[in-house]
Amino acid sequence: MTNFEQYIKEEISKYNDSTIKDAMFYTIADGKRYRPNIIFSILKGFNIDESFAYPCACALEFIQTYSLIHDDMPCMDNDKLRRGKPTCHIKYGEDVALLVGDTFLTHSFSCISDTELYSDTLKTKLISILSSYAGLNGMIYGQLLDVKEKNITKELIDKVHENKTAALFKFSCLSAMYLANNNDYKYFEELGKRIGLIFQYQDDLFDVLKSEEDTGKSNSDIENNKFTAINLFKDINELKDYINTMFNDLYNYLDKAPFNAKYLKKILNRMKER
Amino acid sequence: MTNFEQYIKEEISKYNDSTIKDAMFYTIADGKRYRPNIIFSILKGFNIDESFAYPCACALEFIQTYSLIHDDMPCMDNDKLRRGKPTCHIKYGEDVALLVGDTFLTHSFSCISDTELYSDTLKTKLISILSSYAGLNGMIYGQLLDVKEKNITKELIDKVHENKTAALFKFSCLSAMYLANNNDYKYFEELGKRIGLIFQYQDDLFDVLKSEEDTGKSNSDIENNKFTAINLFKDINELKDYINTMFNDLYNYLDKAPFNAKYLKKILNRMKER
Repeated sequence: MTNFEQYIKEEISKYNDSTIKDAMFYTIADGKRYRPNIIFSILKGFNIDESFAYPCACALEFIQTYSLIHDDMPCMDNDKLRRGKPTCHIKYGEDVALLVGDTFLTHSFSCISDTELYSDTLKTKLISILSSYAGLNGMIYGQLLDVKEKNITKELIDKVHENKTAALFKFSCLSAMYLANNNDYKYFEELGKRIGLIFQYQDDLFDVLKSEEDTGKSNSDIENNKFTAINLFKDINELKDYINTMFNDLYNYLDKAPFNAKYLKKILNRMKER
Repeated sequence: MTNFEQYIKEEISKYNDSTIKDAMFYTIADGKRYRPNIIFSILKGFNIDESFAYPCACALEFIQTYSLIHDDMPCMDNDKLRRGKPTCHIKYGEDVALLVGDTFLTHSFSCISDTELYSDTLKTKLISILSSYAGLNGMIYGQLLDVKEKNITKELIDKVHENKTAALFKFSCLSAMYLANNNDYKYFEELGKRIGLIFQYQDDLFDVLKSEEDTGKSNSDIENNKFTAINLFKDINELKDYINTMFNDLYNYLDKAPFNAKYLKKILNRMKER
């Protein structure tokens, strides 16, 4: 992973020196890079070096970071702690945080458009799905439901999770597909959806189980009395069982993968243990 | 212009129904479309139908609208009136306004990546300059200077104007250049810079001269005791003369244009009279 971390740093280094640039380095550090790692591991399963995915994975990590910065702001979840340190608006002020989010979002697209590694056709495909899954038919739609919907059901929770969280995991899997010149859209979109749903159910579980010190982020959901997945289950054990079942189904689904799934399984095992 | 307005509406209609979509229609309406019109008029001067520019011009108008929405928010300029009606966060709440801005920004790129009118190579070029001029080496950098810099000089004002405002006018001119398959980057970038600087000096003048009713927007600069271009001149007449001189220089510059400039001159005349 050292190389990808270096790549991210070099990408940010290209921009004008400013408080925003400082805040970009600050906020992007210490992420666990699950979404990029999923791309890398699928590519390895296609026998392609992970470095081919760096521009695309960097774009994805930019999008993920922008969404956290804006989501943490006082008008949204009002979170004060993220990745074990003060959130961007606490550290740099709300005005700068807003602009830092905008910057990450804007430049996620130049990460892809400006690389010399991809053909223009590949760039166009990647930008199209990045915009789509990060936008109003994906992540932002989930964000809106999460903030605004009050009448919570299992169906709605799944809809929020699929859009807010799974959309970027779908991008991980689909971008890997394009990078590997494969075209089984249905398989890879479903794969991303399954991984994303598990990831978000886990997050909801951790919010109940773990302290702020363990998760490195403040728990606004509980403070805001927000309805999360945990409310759908009899107790924590039932939620744990549900997550385990989803993991088992996912491993079965990987038996049909059009790539060697052993590298992706490693990442998923790490996710299971987190 | 009717067709372009229709095009914008159809683009937004593609997305999931939601409060955000309603707010997109609300905020994008009633804009004067100077930046798109500059693209159209240059294309006409190349003998190309303006409709060829619609996807690109729509992307630009999305970016312009997102920047206004975020700029109006309480943590930025805290403006309550825009285009003659309540700003987005006043009408829909801060959380929705933040997401509406993010949505416009995100989908500005899909406007270009998903059109069938352009080749992948043209798409890549347009997306690259859109991201660059809207990002931390362009508009956002100007925004940051505008919010944070206290030690104001003529040099700094020009730097703010060139980045915050002229960056998108540069995109207008440069995108027209790409759409017309021309490659005189230096000429078109300079053209955009000149138009953008005039536009912003005019705006600063209007902020002093006109009432909120005339401009359709609240004047946070004066309320916030912000230092604007007007402070650099002895009086309003000196600023007016300065703007006139810039207009004359611009018309001279157009004598060297690699396209028939009569259509662009019409737009500039309209700008001069505004």
